[in-house]
Amino acid sequence: MRALEISDRDLSKLAIEAAKLAANYWSSLDGRPAYPATSGTQTSRLFDRPWARAGRGPAILDEFAAIAEHVRPCTGRFFGYVAGSGEPVGAIGDLLASVLNQNCTSWRSAPAAATIERVVVGWLAEAVGCAGFAGSLCGGGSTANLMGLAMARESLLPANDDGARPGVVYASEQAHMSIAKAVSLLGLGRNNLRLLPVDEDFRLRTDALRDAIALDRRQGRTPLAIVASVGTVATGAIDPLPHLAEIARAEGIWLHVDGAFGVLAALAAPEKFEGLSLADSISLDAHKWLYQPIDCSCLLHRERTAARKAFSYSGDYVRILNQDPEESFAFFDESIELTRRFRALKLWMSLQYHGRDAFREAITRDLQHAQLLARAVQSHPALELLAPVPLSAVCFRHRARDNEAILRRVIARGRVYLSNATINGRFALRACFVNHRTTREDVDEIIVEVIAAADELNA
Amino acid sequence: MRALEISDRDLSKLAIEAAKLAANYWSSLDGRPAYPATSGTQTSRLFDRPWARAGRGPAILDEFAAIAEHVRPCTGRFFGYVAGSGEPVGAIGDLLASVLNQNCTSWRSAPAAATIERVVVGWLAEAVGCAGFAGSLCGGGSTANLMGLAMARESLLPANDDGARPGVVYASEQAHMSIAKAVSLLGLGRNNLRLLPVDEDFRLRTDALRDAIALDRRQGRTPLAIVASVGTVATGAIDPLPHLAEIARAEGIWLHVDGAFGVLAALAAPEKFEGLSLADSISLDAHKWLYQPIDCSCLLHRERTAARKAFSYSGDYVRILNQDPEESFAFFDESIELTRRFRALKLWMSLQYHGRDAFREAITRDLQHAQLLARAVQSHPALELLAPVPLSAVCFRHRARDNEAILRRVIARGRVYLSNATINGRFALRACFVNHRTTREDVDEIIVEVIAAADELNA
Repeated sequence: MRALEISDRDLSKLAIEAAKLAANYWSSLDGRPAYPATSGTQTSRLFDRPWARAGRGPAILDEFAAIAEHVRPCTGRFFGYVAGSGEPVGAIGDLLASVLNQNCTSWRSAPAAATIERVVVGWLAEAVGCAGFAGSLCGGGSTANLMGLAMARESLLPANDDGARPGVVYASEQAHMSIAKAVSLLGLGRNNLRLLPVDEDFRLRTDALRDAIALDRRQGRTPLAIVASVGTVATGAIDPLPHLAEIARAEGIWLHVDGAFGVLAALAAPEKFEGLSLADSISLDAHKWLYQPIDCSCLLHRERTAARKAFSYSGDYVRILNQDPEESFAFFDESIELTRRFRALKLWMSLQYHGRDAFREAITRDLQHAQLLARAVQSHPALELLAPVPLSAVCFRHRARDNEAILRRVIARGRVYLSNATINGRFALRACFVNHRTTREDVDEIIVEVIAAADELNA
Repeated sequence: MRALEISDRDLSKLAIEAAKLAANYWSSLDGRPAYPATSGTQTSRLFDRPWARAGRGPAILDEFAAIAEHVRPCTGRFFGYVAGSGEPVGAIGDLLASVLNQNCTSWRSAPAAATIERVVVGWLAEAVGCAGFAGSLCGGGSTANLMGLAMARESLLPANDDGARPGVVYASEQAHMSIAKAVSLLGLGRNNLRLLPVDEDFRLRTDALRDAIALDRRQGRTPLAIVASVGTVATGAIDPLPHLAEIARAEGIWLHVDGAFGVLAALAAPEKFEGLSLADSISLDAHKWLYQPIDCSCLLHRERTAARKAFSYSGDYVRILNQDPEESFAFFDESIELTRRFRALKLWMSLQYHGRDAFREAITRDLQHAQLLARAVQSHPALELLAPVPLSAVCFRHRARDNEAILRRVIARGRVYLSNATINGRFALRACFVNHRTTREDVDEIIVEVIAAADELNA
């Protein structure tokens, strides 16, 4: 008898039972609310308990229904944040990844898995017009942005040995909070992050960027990196990549693209992303616009040597006794993590199950859904569109009512879920489409629900 | 018709088919080699291909057999690195986590999931004798160590705003490479990491630590943190926690415990971990000694305020409109990541399926297996034990043959898998037991295989 033994028969039953729960859950999604009517008190009461000494066995699956009832369902009517919809083949890929339980530190530790990861990273690079870029998968955009900026720091103001010296990072005031967090973690100091003004389309103003760099140089500081947002989390604005690349080249500084939200839309609308391949590093989230289950992010970079310079620091116990270029490859020499899940398997399965054209079509629909909503907002007398819609985030407001109160009520009604943003100082309702389950009817529902919520406030 | 549509029936078939593949794979493990006879050329040939435009549909599952053949199987005879064995209920939990696809940024984004994560983090803390510690799950020990040291830096030499100033970190020369990587990333500089000598049991020497701190202070540098290895990756040595805690308190500096390998063994052998609860932060890997599928790591910390000081930097678009203490909780204010997978679900399911006693028993067996191997090495005239065995890593050598050649041959024979370490300058064979599938017979096999490999060299 082994430790934690389960007979083959019992395990097979458990796995099949879980697969049925999964399938039933997916087919139940349309009937679920956009957000559960659940309180913190309720979830604490249901789930706060000690770890019991005795095992509960297969009965543990019975709890899935309660958990599913109180989580946020990934329906076609969830439009908050930039929340990918969780493509089911990807979830099945995650099961098989956990079954195989590879540790993708290196080819040595995970032979086929490391190869598959390098292949799918190549697919992602090629899909966004950056064939030839290398990279690795990671947990989220925050980690990918941290790695991109770590590479910038180590290329221009090497700090790994002697510690960080002040170097200045430039981004727009619309940049994601992970940029400031990365600058902090890297020891550069948030006071060396310039959050620069944007134009009327919420894109980084290149004149402001040039001025800021010139001022820093005059004052003896060292410009380090430009972070281009593609697109911004609030409105999906795409910073002017060709101009930023030109400035970066002229100044001899790094160009990192925070493409967590938008870059994968290059698969469907490459014309929006001109200049992307001029970047030094690019973060993108396959758990957003390739609909993969969380987590599945990626950092692409132009120069593997820069990644190795930033991250290679190997202990003897992982020394690789091999000269073959494939077999001696180690992700830990080119990224932050050592232990790494076999994230590539879900991409491998989901992307091939549906094929590239189907993903292009899905992203095209998301872009169309956003335009559909934007037009509906513009044609509704009570509503006002607050920003252009270059990708799939739509920010708008009710002209006459308290929009924060409307948002609470929309969420409480449970038919659609919106989140919020601040646009030119005003509280905005925000709908974002990175959801393969969304239909035209779901989009239409947004206006209906906002108006109904506004009417309730009035009543 | 939705994008990426799959009918309920087809999806149910696919999920059940995948569950059967999983169950069959688990029951096939005993018959699989410890390491595949696979080359880099082979895996490239099999898996290097473009992303096709057309979808392949359910046929994608047919590839699982080929992938499974060329990955490293998690059998009971894999003893390399510190490689957890991948408990199947945890893998099923990973499926359901990807089905629910929660983004555990905060309670608002993932209501029940955030509660469950806080509960299981409490279980982990309590299991290792640190009830009352808070924390969060993350991808691996590297990230957990990075977070612990980021908290140390921000508590003692705040750098988030103005950038890093030199602060000195102390660890033993046996510390894991992720410590140096974290010190680098945080902008402290590896030259400010003191890798101090160890005693004959490979534990950090407290006299060397006191001397190093005193010298740094005399020379005007600022001591920042002590990193205790519990245990070291090579031999499992446990640094003397009560003494280190006393020094940290007297010096007013941070004590971080890198417990990725060993801390969870406190569940089975708490007497080995005296003083653990005196730490300021503790990393541990549930994908090692709780056998969970990768990834499932955790950082515990004593003071939530220190975590908030290090990591809280929130963008407006995630501003939480809620005052309830459970509902307003956000992991992103207390950790590095924003998007976070629902890692807690596998722990929730696996730990309750088997119960706490079963995990204690499994860890106890691993500890016994290591002692069994150590005794077998000591009683074999051709072999030499190279280090004490306080946890479950056993380092040894053949007295007369080229041990690197033996290792290659052991791996090629495919019956057991060992990795290597350098002990007092000598190449060591190393077996590590964090594997619920390992039997006594598997342990016996190690000596048989090493001797057989040595004999082959001789032939």
